[in-house]
Amino acid sequence: MLDANEVESYNTDWTKHYKGTSSIVLRPKCTQDVSKILAYCHTNHIGVVPQAGNTGLVGGSIPMSSSEIIVSVERMKDIISFDPTTGILTGQAGGILQDWQDYARDNRVILPIDLGSKGSCCIGGTVSTNAGGQYYARYKSLHANVVGLEVVLANGDILKFNIQETDKDSNSGCTVFCNLKDNTGYDLKHLFIGAEGSLGIITKVALWCSSSYPQSRCAVICACTSLEQVQKCLYLARQTLGETLSAFEFMDRSVTHLVANSPNSVTSQGNAATMIPKRISSTSGTDGDDSEFYPYYILVETHGSNGLHDDEKMERFLEESIQQNAVEDGVLAQDLTQLESMWAVRESCNPTVASHGYTYKYDVSLPISDFEDFANDLRRRLDSKCSSLDIAITNWGHIMDGNLHFNVTTLGKFDMEPKVLEALEPYIFESVIRRGGSISAEHGLGQAKNKYLPKVHGASTLALMKTIKQVMDPHGIMNPGKYLPLQL
Amino acid sequence: MLDANEVESYNTDWTKHYKGTSSIVLRPKCTQDVSKILAYCHTNHIGVVPQAGNTGLVGGSIPMSSSEIIVSVERMKDIISFDPTTGILTGQAGGILQDWQDYARDNRVILPIDLGSKGSCCIGGTVSTNAGGQYYARYKSLHANVVGLEVVLANGDILKFNIQETDKDSNSGCTVFCNLKDNTGYDLKHLFIGAEGSLGIITKVALWCSSSYPQSRCAVICACTSLEQVQKCLYLARQTLGETLSAFEFMDRSVTHLVANSPNSVTSQGNAATMIPKRISSTSGTDGDDSEFYPYYILVETHGSNGLHDDEKMERFLEESIQQNAVEDGVLAQDLTQLESMWAVRESCNPTVASHGYTYKYDVSLPISDFEDFANDLRRRLDSKCSSLDIAITNWGHIMDGNLHFNVTTLGKFDMEPKVLEALEPYIFESVIRRGGSISAEHGLGQAKNKYLPKVHGASTLALMKTIKQVMDPHGIMNPGKYLPLQL
Repeated sequence: MLDANEVESYNTDWTKHYKGTSSIVLRPKCTQDVSKILAYCHTNHIGVVPQAGNTGLVGGSIPMSSSEIIVSVERMKDIISFDPTTGILTGQAGGILQDWQDYARDNRVILPIDLGSKGSCCIGGTVSTNAGGQYYARYKSLHANVVGLEVVLANGDILKFNIQETDKDSNSGCTVFCNLKDNTGYDLKHLFIGAEGSLGIITKVALWCSSSYPQSRCAVICACTSLEQVQKCLYLARQTLGETLSAFEFMDRSVTHLVANSPNSVTSQGNAATMIPKRISSTSGTDGDDSEFYPYYILVETHGSNGLHDDEKMERFLEESIQQNAVEDGVLAQDLTQLESMWAVRESCNPTVASHGYTYKYDVSLPISDFEDFANDLRRRLDSKCSSLDIAITNWGHIMDGNLHFNVTTLGKFDMEPKVLEALEPYIFESVIRRGGSISAEHGLGQAKNKYLPKVHGASTLALMKTIKQVMDPHGIMNPGKYLPLQL
Repeated sequence: MLDANEVESYNTDWTKHYKGTSSIVLRPKCTQDVSKILAYCHTNHIGVVPQAGNTGLVGGSIPMSSSEIIVSVERMKDIISFDPTTGILTGQAGGILQDWQDYARDNRVILPIDLGSKGSCCIGGTVSTNAGGQYYARYKSLHANVVGLEVVLANGDILKFNIQETDKDSNSGCTVFCNLKDNTGYDLKHLFIGAEGSLGIITKVALWCSSSYPQSRCAVICACTSLEQVQKCLYLARQTLGETLSAFEFMDRSVTHLVANSPNSVTSQGNAATMIPKRISSTSGTDGDDSEFYPYYILVETHGSNGLHDDEKMERFLEESIQQNAVEDGVLAQDLTQLESMWAVRESCNPTVASHGYTYKYDVSLPISDFEDFANDLRRRLDSKCSSLDIAITNWGHIMDGNLHFNVTTLGKFDMEPKVLEALEPYIFESVIRRGGSISAEHGLGQAKNKYLPKVHGASTLALMKTIKQVMDPHGIMNPGKYLPLQL
């Protein structure tokens, strides 16, 4: 039984922007229980909010009405089986991502997904939101790596897609077989990947870990003065690091400045910020900014099977990048501790900006060549419409995927300011659409962005989405008001 | 205007097993024309058989009734754009796979799919059948790499999924932008990947070529005496070749014997069969077989960015495999010509067995540990039920994916023998299902396997497939009688 404070925590999201007032939280332990709950809610037209790690950034797991119940899969955390021949890892939806990563590593394979929230997000939520993360270009999307799925539909029906258990009713102690290739009918599991619980609840996931756990990891943080340099650096990374390139993460000067001065980047191994190359005094100021930081930083990481080869590739990459003026400076991680410090810098972006004030978070896809113009345009707009506020714009993201995390923080002010929101929305989405981008790259729609869906897709596509929702959830009980807008 | 012989060729599949009697073949040149054709057929309830390269092996592109028309996309073969920043290649559905591969290579990236039929199959058919091929484990599935799709629905509606063209009505000369990450609503394009034209016609494809074109390719053909050795060899390949491993292709003794003696394996560079390691006379016969060939062969290939590193990895792999008794012998390709000869051996499996007699072809997924028992069981069954016939069973496939191509050929007899078919079906599918496998790994359902679909999926899953078909093709005009069985 949960007390009132605990129930409140299920009603509050990570950003603290979204608060629900649901008084019922159910935490089933097995698929059969999820099935019974949904069948009951289906019959009685009760709204259900599926929840896993509750780490989303778009309010997708927070109820919008007090009549809804929350169904958390957090107690369904068993790893069911690992097949060393195929590398397929299968488990319940509530498993913590970090635990899946560790389990994979212990079996000498690498989990093909990594996110900043890995310590608390769950595999079920990761799949339900089609999360991307930093290794997307290397290990590919969840549409590639989720090879089996068990879901419970709104009416309680349990569907198994390419998951066969030796003991169907047990949740542990059984083995699972999953085929890597299966072309027997519409591959319906893809509908649930990224559906944010609007079609059913994912209860089991089979994830293909096709790559051996890297024998070596190398990393460098490079400093660039322009986005042209960043793109040149990406080109060289692809050429010289080739198949070992695993991450190419982008941070702008503003967020680097905040992170470098934040306690979030101090780890048990010391201050991670010492890994960031800084401008020497004679060069700073030449671009009209006296910051000790360069305009852009890139964290480049490789995963490989041969330490000598990998070190050689990374050294050659840094040498060529400097020689060809693709980077101004670079710091090479000398060991795994330094490499982890570099990741601590990158992963502290989110908590650091949150600690400085209310943050309007946008996760968009854009042509890389538009990143700067997009940010400058919004800077000018905020300067003119919200000049009385001290606002920081910070940018970071997965630039190899064209994925920009654009953040606007009202420094020192921790409440939402309507005039900032008005200045930003819907302008920011219109700007993204005009540039050919996506208004949600990897964070999903939830209740934050779903109202903009009609601006994104044509009428036929929207009608088809609506029909699929109606067919699979005829009473509209699954995550009401999220994902597809009500007025669709 | 096509003459009668030409119309017949559209009515006959590659295997010559399936013959249609349609008298109308339409070959539109643009999406708008496809739309007009389908809208007309939708209104008038005329069955439409979508066709691309007509290289399928399950009769999916051959009409089942003379009242149906064939719509071939073969004249829609423009490549529309290539984005060097993301590596996304976009073009019309009728482009030949080999042309797309060459175009990608000329732009220094590798197309993430390769098939034996690349010289005649089209990208639209490749996507519509969710083809897998030899690089599946390395470059991943089409669900990973198809990032944008344009399709025409049964009613003529044109849907664009993550494809934006600067000039919407033109089929060439325009540029296309596609986002690598896009989480804005149900990802409906996945429904069309592998739907075999049962939901609409794919008219444009945007394919993510995320990897640089390999600077080096290395290959070896290894000989093994048991499947245990093959699996040990796969384990060592993953460990020592790591991220460079691109293919691990399997051939059994029977097919190797046929191929080595076939004119199909003689290329312009000489006889490819000289690349196959043979048993020396003192060892042959110890397993009760005096064949000069080993029981199993594996073609291992790597793609990498550094020739020196890649050679070193491949040499180490072969050394360790021999030392650890994972292989009996191995021949290393000394140059690209030898490497291509090795692929000529592998790719001549299909035409070679076809040249020896009528071939019953099965493309299944199975646990690797079941390959041998599965084949032996069928051998015994055929020996007992069809003892009067001279039958060759040949096996090859993509063993890294658990994908076995199992072939039964009546040597010297080129007509289908009902008693062979009766001995094989449905027994073979039941055997696959009992072992947890898939009755169609990568070749699809077409008219060959769709009747077995009810044996594969549960009632809820089948009902959902049927509903999706009804919603998207209410008059049932798209590829009638294929894919979903009529009685579903």
